[in-house]
Amino acid sequence: MDFTFLGTSAGTPTKARNVTGLALMHGKPKHWYLIDCGEGTQHQLLHTRHSVMQLQAIFITHVHGDHTFGLPGLLTSASMLGRTEPLFLVAPRPVKTFVETALGNSDSSLSYELKYIDSEADEFYWEDDAVEVMATPLSHRVSSRAFTFTEKNLERQLLKDRLEADGVEPGPAWGELQQGRDVVLENGTVLRSDQYTAITRQPRKIVVGGDNDNPELLEATCQDAHVLIHEATYTQEVADRVGAWPQHSSAAQVARFAEAVGIPNLVLTHFSSRYQLSRDAYPHIGEVEAEATGLYRGTLYLARDLHSYRLHKDLTLRPEPAPGD
Amino acid sequence: MDFTFLGTSAGTPTKARNVTGLALMHGKPKHWYLIDCGEGTQHQLLHTRHSVMQLQAIFITHVHGDHTFGLPGLLTSASMLGRTEPLFLVAPRPVKTFVETALGNSDSSLSYELKYIDSEADEFYWEDDAVEVMATPLSHRVSSRAFTFTEKNLERQLLKDRLEADGVEPGPAWGELQQGRDVVLENGTVLRSDQYTAITRQPRKIVVGGDNDNPELLEATCQDAHVLIHEATYTQEVADRVGAWPQHSSAAQVARFAEAVGIPNLVLTHFSSRYQLSRDAYPHIGEVEAEATGLYRGTLYLARDLHSYRLHKDLTLRPEPAPGD
Repeated sequence: MDFTFLGTSAGTPTKARNVTGLALMHGKPKHWYLIDCGEGTQHQLLHTRHSVMQLQAIFITHVHGDHTFGLPGLLTSASMLGRTEPLFLVAPRPVKTFVETALGNSDSSLSYELKYIDSEADEFYWEDDAVEVMATPLSHRVSSRAFTFTEKNLERQLLKDRLEADGVEPGPAWGELQQGRDVVLENGTVLRSDQYTAITRQPRKIVVGGDNDNPELLEATCQDAHVLIHEATYTQEVADRVGAWPQHSSAAQVARFAEAVGIPNLVLTHFSSRYQLSRDAYPHIGEVEAEATGLYRGTLYLARDLHSYRLHKDLTLRPEPAPGD
Repeated sequence: MDFTFLGTSAGTPTKARNVTGLALMHGKPKHWYLIDCGEGTQHQLLHTRHSVMQLQAIFITHVHGDHTFGLPGLLTSASMLGRTEPLFLVAPRPVKTFVETALGNSDSSLSYELKYIDSEADEFYWEDDAVEVMATPLSHRVSSRAFTFTEKNLERQLLKDRLEADGVEPGPAWGELQQGRDVVLENGTVLRSDQYTAITRQPRKIVVGGDNDNPELLEATCQDAHVLIHEATYTQEVADRVGAWPQHSSAAQVARFAEAVGIPNLVLTHFSSRYQLSRDAYPHIGEVEAEATGLYRGTLYLARDLHSYRLHKDLTLRPEPAPGD
């Protein structure tokens, strides 16, 4: 499972960081999912390997503009490219109204079906062949969600000793069983895939938080997850000075939570535009990093625009080289 | 009068070109106007000297998304920066509805007043201390306008011979007269500014077209104008192949019109995303340029993102160096 940050700035874009967007890739080659879609998300995609033609679904954590204003442009660009495959939009209801008004009032129509799903419905659950997605309510100025992506259809290992012991010779039946399908032999015997194969690893699970001032709300969600991607808008000192109103998390809050819940990988993002990348600038993003490092002993990354990470099958999270641009 | 292209691509952004936006600067230092606001306009501004804090008015030529989808982000970013000065939005009515829905559905409010003006009203006319703006209807798939910016309050030259002949000594009265204000002397004599000063040059006038497949509609508008900024989405050969439906102009159409109407400066923009900047690529933007050069003998520029031009008082148009970035 790979993910690429399309934007890592809170509220407004800066020269170095766009507003929020995350591309998550898993399943069939080039298939991917988009979590949040701030203005300029389609521009950022031009610098990645991801195309709106292979986008499977868009998940919007909450209605704020820095997470949604890129939707009309991305959707109409997909249409201008001639997309015909339906696209899922999983979002709060006001986002649906915003998109419909943007399209209608700009004389736009889409060449494909936009399948809207209410992310805030009590029974929310979404899946396709590759992932299942659940939502966890968070605490923010507006209703906000974390989305948890869990991989499906893990590869099966053939239990060769058992197959040989039962006299099942290598051949097409082995392939069928490995794909999870039961086989009926010519003599009528049924070979059950579950009996002759085993799944030998955990499904990978990534939690992508929306804006949130209370990471503890993710305690149950994070129990068997491998990566938490969460906002850390400020250091604690700045958060105290700004006050409670914006309802964002400090790096200390998130790091302390991640340490307590024992999640092995933490990626912080959604930084206040005051934090700069240059080591000479003040305030510098290194302050946010230092605060988290002091409180969390797992693998920590601070997100940067267009940087990618891979959650390997062995459950380690490592940076990916940037695609040739 | 200076202008900077914030986007020069038609329909969708490319790596080299954003969708449409033009910053026009005139009047008080740093004061400027925005014509069209495609997605990512606020991002482009980060690479110019223009700040949304000094933006006086936004003019939208037509409702299409590549000219409007940047509005919600630009307006809310101005608010997050703490803008309090009212801002004019001159646009077709559906754009007002789009902006209001975007703000309302993203739980956004503005820290300043957005003063909406219907650009399509029959009696449309807008002015401030520095410019007057008129609109000319164009021909496109949706209602579209060109906006003409004419400078106001030109500097006055003192008619020193006349002042001295009438015994008006150099002093504060001279300054008042030069500012266009009449002066009442202690003896009750009224000195009329119009009598003792003269405006010795033409007001500069720039026509900024929206999408349009019939440049001839600008014939009257261009009579005493100095610069025409107009779309040239394709070469004639591509336009013929694409067919009439998109209702765009070819470079040949615009160049032929500009030559016939005798406008001294022509800047082409809004190029189909198929045209590339690299000389090795095909099709290349040089094809569009070659087509226009062959038909127009005035000063011709093909717009590029973040390139700036100045219309000098002597009515020559010349490129400006890019600001240090």
